[in-house]
Amino acid sequence: MDFLQRYKEYVALVDEHLSTFIKRSIPKSLYEPAKYILAAGGKRIRPVLVLCACEAVGGKKEDALHAAAGLEILHNFTLVHDDIMDNAASRRGRPTVHTKWDNNVAILAGDALLGLAYRALLESETANIKELSSIFTEGVIEVCEGQAYDKEFETRKRVTLDEYLLMIQKKTGTMVAVAMEVGAILGDGSPAERRALKAFGALVGEAFQVQDDLLDVIADEKQFGKMIGGDIVEGKKTFLLITALQRAKGDDKRLLRKLVDDAGVPKRAVDRVRRIFHSTGAIEAAGVQIANDIAKAKSQLSVVKDSESAAMLSWFADMLLSRKS
Amino acid sequence: MDFLQRYKEYVALVDEHLSTFIKRSIPKSLYEPAKYILAAGGKRIRPVLVLCACEAVGGKKEDALHAAAGLEILHNFTLVHDDIMDNAASRRGRPTVHTKWDNNVAILAGDALLGLAYRALLESETANIKELSSIFTEGVIEVCEGQAYDKEFETRKRVTLDEYLLMIQKKTGTMVAVAMEVGAILGDGSPAERRALKAFGALVGEAFQVQDDLLDVIADEKQFGKMIGGDIVEGKKTFLLITALQRAKGDDKRLLRKLVDDAGVPKRAVDRVRRIFHSTGAIEAAGVQIANDIAKAKSQLSVVKDSESAAMLSWFADMLLSRKS
Repeated sequence: MDFLQRYKEYVALVDEHLSTFIKRSIPKSLYEPAKYILAAGGKRIRPVLVLCACEAVGGKKEDALHAAAGLEILHNFTLVHDDIMDNAASRRGRPTVHTKWDNNVAILAGDALLGLAYRALLESETANIKELSSIFTEGVIEVCEGQAYDKEFETRKRVTLDEYLLMIQKKTGTMVAVAMEVGAILGDGSPAERRALKAFGALVGEAFQVQDDLLDVIADEKQFGKMIGGDIVEGKKTFLLITALQRAKGDDKRLLRKLVDDAGVPKRAVDRVRRIFHSTGAIEAAGVQIANDIAKAKSQLSVVKDSESAAMLSWFADMLLSRKS
Repeated sequence: MDFLQRYKEYVALVDEHLSTFIKRSIPKSLYEPAKYILAAGGKRIRPVLVLCACEAVGGKKEDALHAAAGLEILHNFTLVHDDIMDNAASRRGRPTVHTKWDNNVAILAGDALLGLAYRALLESETANIKELSSIFTEGVIEVCEGQAYDKEFETRKRVTLDEYLLMIQKKTGTMVAVAMEVGAILGDGSPAERRALKAFGALVGEAFQVQDDLLDVIADEKQFGKMIGGDIVEGKKTFLLITALQRAKGDDKRLLRKLVDDAGVPKRAVDRVRRIFHSTGAIEAAGVQIANDIAKAKSQLSVVKDSESAAMLSWFADMLLSRKS
């Protein structure tokens, strides 16, 4: 089976659903930005995983399409609000909502997207709507917690690796896990299947985020689409910086501490920091973390009914983690 | 029956529920502001109406307490985000969340409150959870639409009275209607009761908002708790300004037009504008609108089972509309 082809078909299915989902066009200041962000594309990881998880337990993907849309809309709600908080000027090659319009429009469009995400989810035909809504809701709350930790860490001098991993689990892992669990519920999976697929999602989500940290240092600038070393210049407490700080000694340690204390370094210091990330083994440790997460994630897949869908999920995890951008 | 006493008991019930609702305390930057706004008090109109509506159709108010909390938390989500958008420095005599912390904290705390509102709602024991969630969700979306219109109107030169009424129906009426409908569902009301109580809520909500416009001009400054004439100084397109603009002639009309075009007048011009609001009959028209809404609202109450609860709701509507602040 050509998994890439199947992935593209699922993305097209989700895109089509999303393109007609918002029926209203006024108030313009609400629905134009909401449609703008939904139409911007992206990898559609969460909705595709909803569909795959549903099929993996023997369900029909059509039964999970509303929920898939709900997960993607929810994800876009977090993007719009996070971009305000992070002062991000562009996303997916286009101006962010608060840049193209303004902060007020972005706050409100984000709020509406959250409402629209629930609307999509609630269109699902299932006897488990209460459970589905609760899982979704706990996901929303956890994502907020994750983002709050992320912002708190920006001004903290010390962040442990465990704290960092908790933050990315909440900020990224939870919603991927929710996507998998929601798909498994809509496909009428067994409790064991649901647990396994949820765990798969949490692990893949975590690995994806660590990979993001890694790409900042080792990616090809053109393919990555943003400046390499951006995290270093900003002094972002990534997996790499936290790990390197633990391990570095002497001048190297002083430089990294300064990077944290000053919340960043000049661009000319980026190369030296990268070398420290290599020499301390932080880069290698990130690779090991990702490999372990993915191995654990894949081991969950033995539980599911449909072996072809399991193979698809396995491929999907590899595809995400071999990405260059 | 002492309705005021009953109202106070219900507020106490809601306050107690809310005070223990948020169990977590970290991340601090998320839960401190969330608890801060929920503890700030307020009239608790929406949750009290949930309880009253439930009883009015023969239900037990205890069955509606989770949903009541959900409605109040949802209302507080809108307050936190609206205060950012409106640049409001204080609310209920205390600094607003974005003033006490910052905009990012307020955006995120508001988002979390929306998640927490769903969590509370979903704790309701009912077979109608899908319907309940959908009503709630459509309410969220309409409130966003209402706020978007409100912000759009700030920069528009012309707003008709119909447009204004649509805006306040969405921004205020909808959530009061949702509160009533949710209460009626949880009390297992008939379709006719549900329709009637929902209509009651929409009308009371609309009247409440027009009353707010009126209080800006005719209230006692000390009791009102904010500056009288604030809407005029800001050039806010209220029921009064829109109505007076339609009716005024000559110099009066020119002054009002200038008020709109300049988005406000100096404080010394407030008295003249107030006189125009009186002389054009705009003040009277607002009074008539409120009286009609309340009369229509009360006429809905003949449908409900429990006559004492109907009397309570009738009292509640009068109480809200006789307020001085």
